Amino acid sequence: MADHVYKIVELVGTSRTTIEDAVQNALTKASETIRSIRWFYVTETRGYVEEGRVGYWQVTIKLGFTIEE
Amino acid sequence: MADHVYKIVELVGTSRTTIEDAVQNALTKASETIRSIRWFYVTETRGYVEEGRVGYWQVTIKLGFTIEE
Amino acid sequence: MADHVYKIVELVGTSRTTIEDAVQNALTKASETIRSIRWFYVTETRGYVEEGRVGYWQVTIKLGFTIEE
Amino acid sequence: MADHVYKIVELVGTSRTTIEDAVQNALTKASETIRSIRWFYVTETRGYVEEGRVGYWQVTIKLGFTIEE
Amino acid sequence: MADHVYKIVELVGTSRTTIEDAVQNALTKASETIRSIRWFYVTETRGYVEEGRVGYWQVTIKLGFTIEE
Amino acid sequence: MADHVYKIVELVGTSRTTIEDAVQNALTKASETIRSIRWFYVTETRGYVEEGRVGYWQVTIKLGFTIEE
Amino acid sequence: MADHVYKIVELVGTSRTTIEDAVQNALTKASETIRSIRWFYVTETRGYVEEGRVGYWQVTIKLGFTIEE
Amino acid sequence: MADHVYKIVELVGTSRTTIEDAVQNALTKASETIRSIRWFYVTETRGYVEEGRVGYWQVTIKLGFTIEE
Amino acid sequence: MADHVYKIVELVGTSRTTIEDAVQNALTKASETIRSIRWFYVTETRGYVEEGRVGYWQVTIKLGFTIEE
Amino acid sequence: MADHVYKIVELVGTSRTTIEDAVQNALTKASETIRSIRWFYVTETRGYVEEGRVGYWQVTIKLGFTIEE
Amino acid sequence: MADHVYKIVELVGTSRTTIEDAVQNALTKASETIRSIRWFYVTETRGYVEEGRVGYWQVTIKLGFTIEE
Amino acid sequence: MADHVYKIVELVGTSRTTIEDAVQNALTKASETIRSIRWFYVTETRGYVEEGRVGYWQVTIKLGFTIEE
Repeated sequence: MADHVYKIVELVGTSRTTIEDAVQNALTKASETIRSIRWFYVTETRGYVEEGRVGYWQVTIKLGFTIEE
Repeated sequence: MADHVYKIVELVGTSRTTIEDAVQNALTKASETIRSIRWFYVTETRGYVEEGRVGYWQVTIKLGFTIEE
Repeated sequence: MADHVYKIVELVGTSRTTIEDAVQNALTKASETIRSIRWFYVTETRGYVEEGRVGYWQVTIKLGFTIEE
Repeated sequence: MADHVYKIVELVGTSRTTIEDAVQNALTKASETIRSIRWFYVTETRGYVEEGRVGYWQVTIKLGFTIEE
Repeated sequence: MADHVYKIVELVGTSRTTIEDAVQNALTKASETIRSIRWFYVTETRGYVEEGRVGYWQVTIKLGFTIEE
Repeated sequence: MADHVYKIVELVGTSRTTIEDAVQNALTKASETIRSIRWFYVTETRGYVEEGRVGYWQVTIKLGFTIEE
Repeated sequence: MADHVYKIVELVGTSRTTIEDAVQNALTKASETIRSIRWFYVTETRGYVEEGRVGYWQVTIKLGFTIEE
Repeated sequence: MADHVYKIVELVGTSRTTIEDAVQNALTKASETIRSIRWFYVTETRGYVEEGRVGYWQVTIKLGFTIEE
Repeated sequence: MADHVYKIVELVGTSRTTIEDAVQNALTKASETIRSIRWFYVTETRGYVEEGRVGYWQVTIKLGFTIEE
Repeated sequence: MADHVYKIVELVGTSRTTIEDAVQNALTKASETIRSIRWFYVTETRGYVEEGRVGYWQVTIKLGFTIEE
Repeated sequence: MADHVYKIVELVGTSRTTIEDAVQNALTKASETIRSIRWFYVTETRGYVEEGRVGYWQVTIKLGFTIEE
Repeated sequence: MADHVYKIVELVGTSRTTIEDAVQNALTKASETIRSIRWFYVTETRGYVEEGRVGYWQVTIKLGFTIEE
């Protein structure tokens, strides 16, 4: 794995149900155009509120992937 | 929306089940007295442990709402 | 409770399903050797990606427990 | 001034024109109900974008005031 | 304790003598209007200087209390 | 808005006049290639100095936009 | 001193009286099992409140000591 | 430019009008005694409030300059 | 240089030898597709361990470049 | 007070007794050469350990003073 | 790799020559007692100065390893 | 060592070769005017890029020294 170079991009996934689902939605969208995604980490967990309930979760992730030859 | 002013308050919601439920419990309690809650973000996720298991989750959120006329 | 001393250790729990489960896995492993765990807080939420999906969650927690006599 | 106690509250002011104006709008609203505001500091500067231009600035401040007798 | 909701407020206590006394002064003032204060943590320790000596300490705390039924 | 995914990119705008103008310059450049920019936040405010005066402001922003279908 | 290796552990000391005493209590407990403690730094100062007064201080420190041959 | 050494000093500029003016005031004062100031960055934006309006802005900057031969 | 706009991207370079080499590897890869890279700063220094030795260094950098006309 | 410029310097005071005394020692030394010190804030609280006890406290402060005409 | 639990410990390695060597010295010492060290990251880079030169580097790392069955 | 007071200053050293050399260059320059430098820590590691290679490293350090009688 030595001398590989990775790129990190920042995305916000949303979901009406869970934090985990919001992350997965971001990964699903990213994997349409990025091959070889390797890892992510969560940088922010927010949400919008509708009539006193969580309307949807907004989870910001940074996503690392191999820059391919 | 311009020239609106929002207030931010900080709450800790708790739940025996999930992080999402702890956040919702804080929102439910806040919406008893605050109308027009708009958004929140999570600032800390903690928990108490009972006999080696998560006894309850304690999730701190900051909550933004419109200061009404 | 005054004059008690607590120790804090840092663990990473993993899970294929949820953030909460990753935390519980870390607590379960820790409670094999540490009695009287009292609280934890989450310091990082990461994950590895396999074919565009969360392969497993990696949640770092700090765990506080009483140093017993 | 010794032994005074101050309270700090967090507000978001908005403005279509400048950062300074967004701060002033928050102060103006706060001073309708809070006497003796003493100082503020900026904790976040954000904005919403409309057709490639700053639609309005959203500036979060913390505001300190004397708790009066 | 599960499903309780706590509110966190931010105060600055001052004292001519010690950091501990500045914190206690903030708690004393807060407990005039807030029942069931549970915990606090220090977020900033400052002071004003008069002729080369600490004139008074200004200690900022966040204070958590149960939102009562 | 649920289940939308946003991308965040980081830009530095510059201006000889104001912080606000530096931000607008970054937005103007970004909107040449990115449709549907939604929000930004300021992460750093710097400047270069020429003969004791601010030569130009350099303001770093993170910019969020909808990943379109 | 070159090529020494130090280990850092994290403890919470408590005291009913002062911040300094809480730190000393953590050091006293640690020195029962760790020889050659060298330095510490404070990472958090908290406290529990009993009837409007500081019930006890909880001070988190990181503690460095030489790993002995 | 290689092997140059720069010094960084921290100043607070004030102004009754704008954040930019407060920065310029700090630079103007600094350039009375420091030649070859190169860059600055803003570390804090505060202000004092007089009767519900911003009385003056207090902007803290770090200022870099070449240590001359 | 006024009114230029810069973009910042985040990369992870790896190397079996040094931190400096890991940074250079990221720059070399980036310069295959980005002209006019101007500066970088290090945001994280990590590494993987193989049999008690640093297997390879992983250094995360943010990289700024001029958005060309 | 408008248009004043303040300088901030960083000092470490030490004391065998208390945190407050370490701060005062730094102020006393600084006031030998700096007139018109106005405020300080604590940025780090450390200490050296001698035979399981706090040998001396090392408290880092930033100190603000008026740049005089 | 799912459901593994990792422990993180914090060490300071020192070296008279390079940052990389200080990290390796910490790893070498740690691997005397810890099997299966997996990764590390640098949290602080300090040094002591002797007669105007770096006497030795002190690099703090956090070190992750698998808790073995 | 008790009751000593230290001053901390911030410098940026540069080098075409290594991070360590950039730090040493800052120390060498500082020791021309400051006696009894004691320690430093690195606060930022940056660099300028020339044709896809690190042109020179810019390493910011804080430097502590005894204020002599």
